[in-house]
Amino acid sequence: MTTNHFERIKSAIEELSQEQSYKSVCHPHFKDHKMPSLQALEKIVSLSREIIFPGYYGDSSIRPDSVRYYIGVNTEKLYSLMVEQIFAGLCFMCDKPEGFDLSERKGQAHDYASQFISVLPDVRRVLTTDVEAAFLGDPAAKSKGEVIFCYPAIRAITNYRVAHALLKIGVPLIPRMISEMAHSETGIDIHPRATIGEYFSIDHGTGVVIGATSILGNNVKLFQGVTLGAKSFPLDEKGNPIKGIPRHPIIEDNVVIYAQATILGRITVGANSIIGGNVWVTNSVASGSKIVQFKPRDVLYAEGGGI
Amino acid sequence: MTTNHFERIKSAIEELSQEQSYKSVCHPHFKDHKMPSLQALEKIVSLSREIIFPGYYGDSSIRPDSVRYYIGVNTEKLYSLMVEQIFAGLCFMCDKPEGFDLSERKGQAHDYASQFISVLPDVRRVLTTDVEAAFLGDPAAKSKGEVIFCYPAIRAITNYRVAHALLKIGVPLIPRMISEMAHSETGIDIHPRATIGEYFSIDHGTGVVIGATSILGNNVKLFQGVTLGAKSFPLDEKGNPIKGIPRHPIIEDNVVIYAQATILGRITVGANSIIGGNVWVTNSVASGSKIVQFKPRDVLYAEGGGI
Amino acid sequence: MTTNHFERIKSAIEELSQEQSYKSVCHPHFKDHKMPSLQALEKIVSLSREIIFPGYYGDSSIRPDSVRYYIGVNTEKLYSLMVEQIFAGLCFMCDKPEGFDLSERKGQAHDYASQFISVLPDVRRVLTTDVEAAFLGDPAAKSKGEVIFCYPAIRAITNYRVAHALLKIGVPLIPRMISEMAHSETGIDIHPRATIGEYFSIDHGTGVVIGATSILGNNVKLFQGVTLGAKSFPLDEKGNPIKGIPRHPIIEDNVVIYAQATILGRITVGANSIIGGNVWVTNSVASGSKIVQFKPRDVLYAEGGGI
Amino acid sequence: MTTNHFERIKSAIEELSQEQSYKSVCHPHFKDHKMPSLQALEKIVSLSREIIFPGYYGDSSIRPDSVRYYIGVNTEKLYSLMVEQIFAGLCFMCDKPEGFDLSERKGQAHDYASQFISVLPDVRRVLTTDVEAAFLGDPAAKSKGEVIFCYPAIRAITNYRVAHALLKIGVPLIPRMISEMAHSETGIDIHPRATIGEYFSIDHGTGVVIGATSILGNNVKLFQGVTLGAKSFPLDEKGNPIKGIPRHPIIEDNVVIYAQATILGRITVGANSIIGGNVWVTNSVASGSKIVQFKPRDVLYAEGGGI
Amino acid sequence: MTTNHFERIKSAIEELSQEQSYKSVCHPHFKDHKMPSLQALEKIVSLSREIIFPGYYGDSSIRPDSVRYYIGVNTEKLYSLMVEQIFAGLCFMCDKPEGFDLSERKGQAHDYASQFISVLPDVRRVLTTDVEAAFLGDPAAKSKGEVIFCYPAIRAITNYRVAHALLKIGVPLIPRMISEMAHSETGIDIHPRATIGEYFSIDHGTGVVIGATSILGNNVKLFQGVTLGAKSFPLDEKGNPIKGIPRHPIIEDNVVIYAQATILGRITVGANSIIGGNVWVTNSVASGSKIVQFKPRDVLYAEGGGI
Amino acid sequence: MTTNHFERIKSAIEELSQEQSYKSVCHPHFKDHKMPSLQALEKIVSLSREIIFPGYYGDSSIRPDSVRYYIGVNTEKLYSLMVEQIFAGLCFMCDKPEGFDLSERKGQAHDYASQFISVLPDVRRVLTTDVEAAFLGDPAAKSKGEVIFCYPAIRAITNYRVAHALLKIGVPLIPRMISEMAHSETGIDIHPRATIGEYFSIDHGTGVVIGATSILGNNVKLFQGVTLGAKSFPLDEKGNPIKGIPRHPIIEDNVVIYAQATILGRITVGANSIIGGNVWVTNSVASGSKIVQFKPRDVLYAEGGGI
Repeated sequence: MTTNHFERIKSAIEELSQEQSYKSVCHPHFKDHKMPSLQALEKIVSLSREIIFPGYYGDSSIRPDSVRYYIGVNTEKLYSLMVEQIFAGLCFMCDKPEGFDLSERKGQAHDYASQFISVLPDVRRVLTTDVEAAFLGDPAAKSKGEVIFCYPAIRAITNYRVAHALLKIGVPLIPRMISEMAHSETGIDIHPRATIGEYFSIDHGTGVVIGATSILGNNVKLFQGVTLGAKSFPLDEKGNPIKGIPRHPIIEDNVVIYAQATILGRITVGANSIIGGNVWVTNSVASGSKIVQFKPRDVLYAEGGGI
Repeated sequence: MTTNHFERIKSAIEELSQEQSYKSVCHPHFKDHKMPSLQALEKIVSLSREIIFPGYYGDSSIRPDSVRYYIGVNTEKLYSLMVEQIFAGLCFMCDKPEGFDLSERKGQAHDYASQFISVLPDVRRVLTTDVEAAFLGDPAAKSKGEVIFCYPAIRAITNYRVAHALLKIGVPLIPRMISEMAHSETGIDIHPRATIGEYFSIDHGTGVVIGATSILGNNVKLFQGVTLGAKSFPLDEKGNPIKGIPRHPIIEDNVVIYAQATILGRITVGANSIIGGNVWVTNSVASGSKIVQFKPRDVLYAEGGGI
Repeated sequence: MTTNHFERIKSAIEELSQEQSYKSVCHPHFKDHKMPSLQALEKIVSLSREIIFPGYYGDSSIRPDSVRYYIGVNTEKLYSLMVEQIFAGLCFMCDKPEGFDLSERKGQAHDYASQFISVLPDVRRVLTTDVEAAFLGDPAAKSKGEVIFCYPAIRAITNYRVAHALLKIGVPLIPRMISEMAHSETGIDIHPRATIGEYFSIDHGTGVVIGATSILGNNVKLFQGVTLGAKSFPLDEKGNPIKGIPRHPIIEDNVVIYAQATILGRITVGANSIIGGNVWVTNSVASGSKIVQFKPRDVLYAEGGGI
Repeated sequence: MTTNHFERIKSAIEELSQEQSYKSVCHPHFKDHKMPSLQALEKIVSLSREIIFPGYYGDSSIRPDSVRYYIGVNTEKLYSLMVEQIFAGLCFMCDKPEGFDLSERKGQAHDYASQFISVLPDVRRVLTTDVEAAFLGDPAAKSKGEVIFCYPAIRAITNYRVAHALLKIGVPLIPRMISEMAHSETGIDIHPRATIGEYFSIDHGTGVVIGATSILGNNVKLFQGVTLGAKSFPLDEKGNPIKGIPRHPIIEDNVVIYAQATILGRITVGANSIIGGNVWVTNSVASGSKIVQFKPRDVLYAEGGGI
Repeated sequence: MTTNHFERIKSAIEELSQEQSYKSVCHPHFKDHKMPSLQALEKIVSLSREIIFPGYYGDSSIRPDSVRYYIGVNTEKLYSLMVEQIFAGLCFMCDKPEGFDLSERKGQAHDYASQFISVLPDVRRVLTTDVEAAFLGDPAAKSKGEVIFCYPAIRAITNYRVAHALLKIGVPLIPRMISEMAHSETGIDIHPRATIGEYFSIDHGTGVVIGATSILGNNVKLFQGVTLGAKSFPLDEKGNPIKGIPRHPIIEDNVVIYAQATILGRITVGANSIIGGNVWVTNSVASGSKIVQFKPRDVLYAEGGGI
Repeated sequence: MTTNHFERIKSAIEELSQEQSYKSVCHPHFKDHKMPSLQALEKIVSLSREIIFPGYYGDSSIRPDSVRYYIGVNTEKLYSLMVEQIFAGLCFMCDKPEGFDLSERKGQAHDYASQFISVLPDVRRVLTTDVEAAFLGDPAAKSKGEVIFCYPAIRAITNYRVAHALLKIGVPLIPRMISEMAHSETGIDIHPRATIGEYFSIDHGTGVVIGATSILGNNVKLFQGVTLGAKSFPLDEKGNPIKGIPRHPIIEDNVVIYAQATILGRITVGANSIIGGNVWVTNSVASGSKIVQFKPRDVLYAEGGGI
């Protein structure tokens, strides 16, 4: 390395190591604290899928006699990974180690994790309705097995239902990470705090966004690119957004929303409505409505080359 | 583990192992049947790319004399992986093992796989036109090599052309899995049953959806977020969607469709048309049309803070 | 293998190995040239993140005393991986080996890589503003740490800022590959040539496209599905697109653009404007404007089943 | 590559591809035959250890209630891996595919594998005596747990007992591969055909060789480097060794053999004997004997520099 | 699976899950206890090598300015892995969880690990003498670098010196595991409790065994297959070996022991002695002795075919 | 971390980073030099095995028509890995970068690697004789295929013949690393400089050592633990061993040497001799000799408990 290159590197390291350079974007590590691990969370999601949909994932061999062994082992493994990651999530949120009792937090992690395990049967029950809805709603689906095994929306909804269960128990950070994993894999971004009823389906799904305070009834169907978002939000006296205020839509039962529709703000889309694609909706919609975009224009080539 | 946590886990395992809990979301395994493997399919896609575009993938060293060795080995490996995965696909579709002759199905898998190999030269020929179209259509592209090596749309179209070839031969499930792999990687969701002509290009691509019965002519160009979807579909007397009915658009030659346009139903977009972005189109469009969204409004701040 | 299958494979290999079949889609390898490696680029991106945001990635243990060790080692590793990949990028662009002096290009790679290292402190400084903007703009964000650790937009913007720095230095191909990695992971497609100011934020982000000649001011916020694209581009006398002409929008300071808006062409969106979702904008917009889609229609069920 | 290097490679490939060059060292592949996989066998050995010694290997969490789940899952997995590898072993031994009925052999593999599973409880019972012997015989051993977890001889004896069980059932090739895996890992080479009683122990173990027709009683202890080998063997009329003739020693109960002793031929070492290290024994030894090497000489430096 | 196979498996699982079957070979897991991980220990050994011999292992780039960064990071990583593994070692030795305070033991692990880090400079200093001895003693060695990088004995001695340092600090189990790793890799089995002076060398090394209470002076050289073992050991009233009694040889300074020599019992081999290969030595040897095996016989073919 | 632990670590890092501490055990890295990679060498050995014994390793499917493809690809890959590793070996031996012309050395690496490729057919030819010898000499061998696939001695001899070929061409370091890989895997340590004739076999093999200047004729058979070593070697005036002097045995044609025999010094074992196990031979042996250990003594229990 010529002196020139070497000096550049040396001085960059020096600059990058100055406290004023890194202090606002650095995560300090405290003794015996743990960082959440994306790899462990992937294992957690994969074990959850193996438990909920036995025989589809992992190299299992499911027969009536063997299913209990697999569910037993996978649940035990899920439990111990969960304890570690919930503990890591608690550590992550801690910004000073004094008063953060490690044993107590470990106990809390055990408690949260076992609560999570105990709601898994209900998570499966609701997911069963989602699979049913996806199967009935897609003429291209050949069997429920294909829906479970291949449909990205089922992966995203599974992550959401797992993350939502964790969030309701009080687990920090981990639910968000689990939903971002599905977001990256499927392009579907469901905030774990959203409330979503049964028989929920998403078709194709890339670009779907469901905000934190959204409430969806039963039998809602969304197509790709649908946004259930916030329009704006009040700021506090310091100019920071006020957290926790309901700011996303309420979608009642049996609503269908077509591709790329953007529904913003704490409005209500009444039951049995159909929202056409590519619309921008910022006001409530009565039950049974059918909203579509204003008709497009046909502009002739006169306007110039291209469009 | 305190008794409390332990009891929660034990009882959850018990509940999850009850047949009535898992039976509709469980995949039973029959003797000597195989499950499709995502990992093997990734290898299949990667070998297909190495064969079609020699020298871009894998740690090959391509010279005129060595190219045959690489194509030979990769084709042999592709063949044997294909046999296994096609066989697994046949197993997956089987819901009772009686009457499912394993040897016969293995033979069928060999037949399908060798048919697939024999259409690879044609798959390459058509992909060459797609590369050409992407290169000509993007002022930012520096060379065809860059297009092949870096453009996600080429990855997605390659998976589609491979999956479509398999589907035409009669292979179940595997085509869908291959197209979902591209969907996850690129956000482009092309149903393997769709019919797409030569010189096909997609720019950026995230959010593109092309439904199963779509028919696209030659020289079609789509931008990100374009949907070629179904508007609605008839139900049979039991309320289930009737499968196989043409329900997606026909896009004729030389059509360009801009970002986020949603084209729904068995309509025809006539040759040489241009469809602007963000439009909702549910009626046929004559050849040479140029359709754009109705002009947006400029609403002043009077309407209130935010939008 | 029956003769039949065997013959199909043999003849496909033969056909695929013909020069006329592969020549336009083949990358020939020259002596001692290297191919860029996606795996190495992933390591590069991951090291860059570890250096910029110390303590969030890798199994580090960051204390004031140890931070310099980690930054030192990671920077050294980043440097040597960069040299290899930049060299591979230079090789990739070379279509005939004569006159391509390997030692000289290796020296160039060292020079480029050390220039890159020396701008890392500035890359961090600007990313710090982006983190700040994301935190302030999202009522759901609990801490800056959560933003850095979990938000896909921060990953995409980090890749963009790294890729942009490389592109400005003159590195070919590699910047594009780095931005495509973020595209695949997050659905956000920012061309490394785009110019983007400080305090830049993207919410959710799937489907965002920012074209090569776009110019964004400070404090711009985009939502998912926003396109800053080209409307059309002039062709040269041979019908090829003329490269390098400004063809993407200029977005001035403090602009917010809502989901799925499509802004096309070399137009200007004036400072402090708000662009509503799902609009199609092909003309410049004055400062302080607030543009929304024309109101949708409510069509009753009379129009027929479905939508 | 200069022509010179290129020509060398091309001509070497040509020569290496000539049938007369490779035919006696080539393994031809028949349709749907499988090759044994070292990786799968490693998984088999590791599952066997997890089943036999619950809680020591794998990331299990063994409690009285959970042990059945782990044993259930591991046994199921062991069974299906075994079926594949036994089938591969049968294929390997086949030198012409005609008359080799794949379905029938697959059935045979299932039968052999399930026989193997059914002797696992007995394998564990005997291994328990071996652990006991190792613990009692080593003053450095702190607990039986340490013996099970750390002692290479226990790994080697476990592989032997598994391999021996398979060999007795009639499985070809696989037993040999399993014992070679232990040989590589521990330097202990026990032929799977050898017959070995209970409470068997080996201390340190590197270099131990126990030949195919050896018979060892109960409570035998060997130190490192001990050979129980063949002295010579009769040839048939073609000069080939006659296979299957007893040619290795019989070691009766309660014998101890010290380091590097070489015991050759079908001789008997009587019960309760002690064989000292570094001896060469080719004749039978009466019960209760104590055999040591003839005393070494002390040669002074007079004999010359060095030794 | 036919009922037959299935019944075999089911009944084997049942039998293997009976407490009386597994209880003496099972390791129960207590809440929040950890098992030692072979993979983590391999990382520990590899980090130790990187720290002691900078620039030979890992993908480092060592220059005078960068060496501190690498040693800093590797030492930090070594420390945190050590804490985890020492804690796991303490857990492993615990047979009932009551009275085993996890926080206290974690603190003990921190203390042991930091003590270990603080003796690393001395471990390096002594290993430097071992490298020197190997280089001087082997005419085939081209450089000290080759000795460090390639010689298995240096790997084994490094593991020994690391394990011995841990054992002296009081760490349970882990030292034994580290020495078994070297045993498996090199065939050299040095008990971590043995005491070994400076300038220690082993040539080739396969089969070397050095027992727990051995004491070796400075400048000792061993060849392959040398045993420094125990002859016999007293039993207590219950017939168990009495632990901790000195039972292995004392080898004084400047002794050379040739291949396969077996030296047993608490005897002394006096300084400057040479022990020839293949001898069995159970009595002390005076300083300056030169011991060789009694001359072999030349037996003619008269004795029969073979040997 | 308490101050105490922290201070220990900080001061150890400081001490370990002092130049006087590391300078004699540190490998400095020069610009654009490479380190040999054990992982790459494992790939090299594995490719060599795949080329020499087609169909046994890798996931190949060998038929008369496909064998050329596999050999072509494997040879191309072997060549390019070889170039890199030979170049790295040349770098390793360089202790100052001035005058070490990287381009020239890269050219040398190409030349050495292509020479190596061109002797591969002869390496295969000789290995074929070794396989034949192992098969004929072992009554337990069922087929040559089993010998090639399972016998550790064939792995060790293959590595030796590859390493010896490289050493004869002039490649530094790499041959030694390749032979140490076999040593670790099999316990057989053959110096790559040794000269070994055809039809060479080793049975079991753990502990075999063959020194650098050994010369073995045709049809030699060794058992486990045999040493062909150096007795002593002259020192130069500085007390360093004089390198390169013949100091290991010459073993003539048709010699058999039994387990643990130690043959030392530049002596000759005449053709057709048999050397019994556990002997110490430091003088030449006439052709046709049959040497065995002096008979052991039977010492009764009178001598005391144990042996």
